[in-house]
Amino acid sequence: MSDIDVVLRRLDETSDACLERLFAFLRIPSISAQPAHAMDCQAAAEWLSADLTSMGFATEICPTGGHPVVLARRDGPAGAPHVLFYGHYDVQPVDPLALWDSPPFEPILKKRPDGSEEIVARGAADDKGQVMTFVEACRALIDVTGGLPVGVTFVIEGEEESGGEHLPGFLASRKDDLKADIALICDTGMPGPGRPAITAMLRGLCGEEVTIHASSCDLHSGMFGNAARNPIEVLCHALASLRDRDTGRITLPGFYDGVPDLPDTLRAQWKEIGLDDAAILGPFGLSEPGGEKGYTALEQIWARPTCEINGITGGYAGDGFKTVLPAKASAKVSFRLVGTQDPEKIRAEFRARIQAFLPSDCRAEFVAHGGSCASVVPDTLPALQLALGALKDEWGVEAVVTGCGGSIPVVGDMQTILGLQSLLIGFGLDDDRIHSPNEKYDLSSFKKGARSWVRVLQVLGHVTSEGLTETGKKA
Amino acid sequence: MSDIDVVLRRLDETSDACLERLFAFLRIPSISAQPAHAMDCQAAAEWLSADLTSMGFATEICPTGGHPVVLARRDGPAGAPHVLFYGHYDVQPVDPLALWDSPPFEPILKKRPDGSEEIVARGAADDKGQVMTFVEACRALIDVTGGLPVGVTFVIEGEEESGGEHLPGFLASRKDDLKADIALICDTGMPGPGRPAITAMLRGLCGEEVTIHASSCDLHSGMFGNAARNPIEVLCHALASLRDRDTGRITLPGFYDGVPDLPDTLRAQWKEIGLDDAAILGPFGLSEPGGEKGYTALEQIWARPTCEINGITGGYAGDGFKTVLPAKASAKVSFRLVGTQDPEKIRAEFRARIQAFLPSDCRAEFVAHGGSCASVVPDTLPALQLALGALKDEWGVEAVVTGCGGSIPVVGDMQTILGLQSLLIGFGLDDDRIHSPNEKYDLSSFKKGARSWVRVLQVLGHVTSEGLTETGKKA
Repeated sequence: MSDIDVVLRRLDETSDACLERLFAFLRIPSISAQPAHAMDCQAAAEWLSADLTSMGFATEICPTGGHPVVLARRDGPAGAPHVLFYGHYDVQPVDPLALWDSPPFEPILKKRPDGSEEIVARGAADDKGQVMTFVEACRALIDVTGGLPVGVTFVIEGEEESGGEHLPGFLASRKDDLKADIALICDTGMPGPGRPAITAMLRGLCGEEVTIHASSCDLHSGMFGNAARNPIEVLCHALASLRDRDTGRITLPGFYDGVPDLPDTLRAQWKEIGLDDAAILGPFGLSEPGGEKGYTALEQIWARPTCEINGITGGYAGDGFKTVLPAKASAKVSFRLVGTQDPEKIRAEFRARIQAFLPSDCRAEFVAHGGSCASVVPDTLPALQLALGALKDEWGVEAVVTGCGGSIPVVGDMQTILGLQSLLIGFGLDDDRIHSPNEKYDLSSFKKGARSWVRVLQVLGHVTSEGLTETGKKA
Repeated sequence: MSDIDVVLRRLDETSDACLERLFAFLRIPSISAQPAHAMDCQAAAEWLSADLTSMGFATEICPTGGHPVVLARRDGPAGAPHVLFYGHYDVQPVDPLALWDSPPFEPILKKRPDGSEEIVARGAADDKGQVMTFVEACRALIDVTGGLPVGVTFVIEGEEESGGEHLPGFLASRKDDLKADIALICDTGMPGPGRPAITAMLRGLCGEEVTIHASSCDLHSGMFGNAARNPIEVLCHALASLRDRDTGRITLPGFYDGVPDLPDTLRAQWKEIGLDDAAILGPFGLSEPGGEKGYTALEQIWARPTCEINGITGGYAGDGFKTVLPAKASAKVSFRLVGTQDPEKIRAEFRARIQAFLPSDCRAEFVAHGGSCASVVPDTLPALQLALGALKDEWGVEAVVTGCGGSIPVVGDMQTILGLQSLLIGFGLDDDRIHSPNEKYDLSSFKKGARSWVRVLQVLGHVTSEGLTETGKKA
C-alpha cells in the first residue's frame, strides 16, 4: 500500500473524529457582521489556532482593525513547493431564524431519502466545512507520514462575510511571511454532485456611476415638457446605446479587445456538465439568455464580458403620479471583464459614450466604483494540470475547469499583493443554501473533499517550486 | 359718456374701497391643505358669499366632502348670454415663513423703485386678487347700470390648492343649476406686463406607469450578468425608442394624428411677446429646446405634443454600489397632447411599443394614470374674438391667444361635465411668486383686470347665447 493510500484510509477510519471537530467549530456562532458576536469570532479563531498548533503548525492569531486572522505555517520538505491556503472562519447571520428546521449552531447529520447524508448548520458549507477538508487532509498526512509533502501557510480570515476590509492590509503588512508558490482557496463549488472542478476564470469589474444634470431645478413637466431637456430621456438614450439589441454585443469601441475565444475543448466540457440554459435560467423564471447571440447562458456568464445597469433613478418613483421634469437622473453601471480587458480603458470609453449623448446644455458627473482585471489561471500552469489530475483520481471523472461570473476579491488580492496565482478548489453544491436558512454541506463533500486535498498536496509535492508555476511546460 | 365709461370711472373712483375689500379677503388665512385652517376656509367662503349677497346675487355655501363651494347667481337681461365664472378662495401654505418680508396674511401695498405698486400677501395673485377683479367689475356694473349685461354664476371653490377632488362631483350634482353659455376662468396670467392674453390651448395628458418584470427575484449581477435579462436595460431600450434623437419627434405610430399646424399668425404673434428660448430656458440653466427641431421652446410648450419620462426606478440607487440584477424596473411616462390627439389611442400605442421590446420571458405591467384630451378654444368662437377685442380696448395692444403646456383640470371638467368652453383670462405675471414667499399681484393687474372684465361682460352682452358660441361665424 502506497503512502497515499494509507493516508486516505486514515481519513476514512477517523471520519467520526473529523466530523466531531467540524461540529465543534460549527458550534461557535462566529457571525462577523454582528457586533454582539465579536467574542465568538475571536473564539473561532482561537479554536482553529489551537487545532493547527496541535498539528505542529507555528500559529499566530493576528489582530486587524476588525476580527483577527489566523496565520499558521508548517514547512514541507526542503526544495518542495509552498502553498498558501485561504479560507474564512466567519459565517453569515442566521435570520430569519424561524425558517431553520434545527438550531443553526447545533450542527446535525441529516439523512436524505436516498440514504446520503448532509451536515446542517450555519457555516457548514460557507466556509467552515470547506476549511476543515483542508485541515483534516493536513492532519492525516502529518499523522501518517510525519509531515506535509509541501509547505503550507494558512490564512483564515474572519471578515469574509462582512466586507473583508482588513484582509488586503493584513496581506500587505505580512507579505514577507506569506511567501508561497501558489494560493489554494477553498470557498467555491462543483458544477454538480460528483463532478470536481477548479475555478480558473473569474470576471473582472469596472463600476461606474453617472449622473446627468439638465435644468437647475425640478420643473413641471406640463409647463416645460418638450422644451426643457429631460435628463432621464438623455440617460435612457445613452444607456440603450451600450448593447446592440440584435447581436447582444456591447457597442463601446474596443470593448472586445483582449477577450479570448472560448477553446473548443472547454466549450465541449461545459456542454456536458448539465448546466444548460434551462438549468441556469429556469429557477428564476427565465428561458432566453440575455447576452451575445451564439453563446449559452453558461458561456455568457463564465467566459464572456457584459455591461449591466445595476441601478437607475430619476424623477418621481413613489405611488401615483407626479408630472415632474427632474433636474437630474443617474445610473450605476458595471462591466464584467474577461481575458485581458482593461477596466480603465473601458471606463474611459463609457464616459466618452455618455458625453457623446449629452446635449450642449447638459452635463454628466461620474464616480468610479472599482476596477479590476479578470483573473485567469493559464491552462498551461502546471499546478492547475496537477490538481486537475489529482481531483480526477479521487472522483473518477474528469475535473472541469470552470469560470465564475463574479469577482472574488481575495483572488485579486493574492495576485496583486502577494503575486500569487490562485487555484479555487471547493466542494460546495448549488443546493447548499449558503447565506440562507438550513445551510448544509454534503457529508460526501466533506469526506471526499479532505481526500481530494491529500491527493492535491501529494502531487504538488512531486515538483519543485519552479515546476509548479512555470507556464509553457506541462507538469 | 357711454354706460361703459361711467362704469369704468366708477371703478377708478372706488379703487380704495375695492382694495380694502380685497385686503379683507386676503386677511383670511384660507390654506386648504392644512386641516388647522379648515375654519378659515369656511370663513373665506362666508366672506365672499356675504359680499356677493350684498350685490344682489342669490348665494349659497355648498358643502362638499371637503371645503365648501360658493355658488352665486344673478340673471342678466332676458335673452342675454349667461356666463359661469370660476375661481378659488383657498390659498397655498406659507412656509417657509422666515422668507416673507411681511406677514403673509397682513396684505400691504408696496411701492417699487419705478413708482408702480404691488399688493403683497398670500393669495394676492393666486387667486383672491384675480377673483376680486371679476367681483369688482360686477359690482361696478350693478351699481352704475342697475344690473349685469349677462347672467353670471359664480363657482368659487376652496380646494384648488389641495387636489380639488370634490369639484367634479359638485359640478355633476348641480349640473342643472350651472347651465351657462361659456365659462370664464380667472386663474392664469399675461405673457408680460401690459400684454393681455387669453389662454385658449391647453395640452391634454395621457399618463402611464410601466413595470418590466424579468427574473423572479433579484440576482447577483456578477453571477448572472449577461445571461439573465436585465429589466432596466429592456426599459431603457424601449423608452429610448420613444423619441427620435435627430428630429426630436415622438415615434409612436400615428402620434401626430390630430396635431394641427401652428397658424402663421399665432407663430408671428408669439415671436413678438418676448418669450424667446433664452427667456424660457435661461432661468433654469438651459439653452437648447429639447423637443422637435424647427420649433421654439414656446411653440414646443404651447402648441406641440411631447412624451416625458417623469420617473424611473430599478435596482440599487443608494450610496455606493451594489452588483444587483433586479427582478424589475419601472417608469412613469406622460404624454402631453394637443389638437385632437386621442389619449387612449396613444396609450395603446405606448403599450404596444413596450411589448415589442420585451424578450419572450419578460412581461410588462401597466397602470393608467389619467387621460384627457387637449382643450382648444377654436379661433372662430365668437366669444373668444369678442373678449380679445375687449381686452385690446382696455390695454391698448393686441391681446394674444396663448397656450399652456400643462393641463388645468377645471377646464376639462367644464367641458366634460357641463359642456362648456372656457375662456381663461387672467392678469397674473411670471414674477408674481405664486406658491412662494412674498406672493404679489401688481396693483395695475388688479385695477385693469377689473376694468377688463367690465369690457368683456359688456361685449358678451351684445350678442345672444347662440351668437356667443356658434363657431363658423365670427362675431
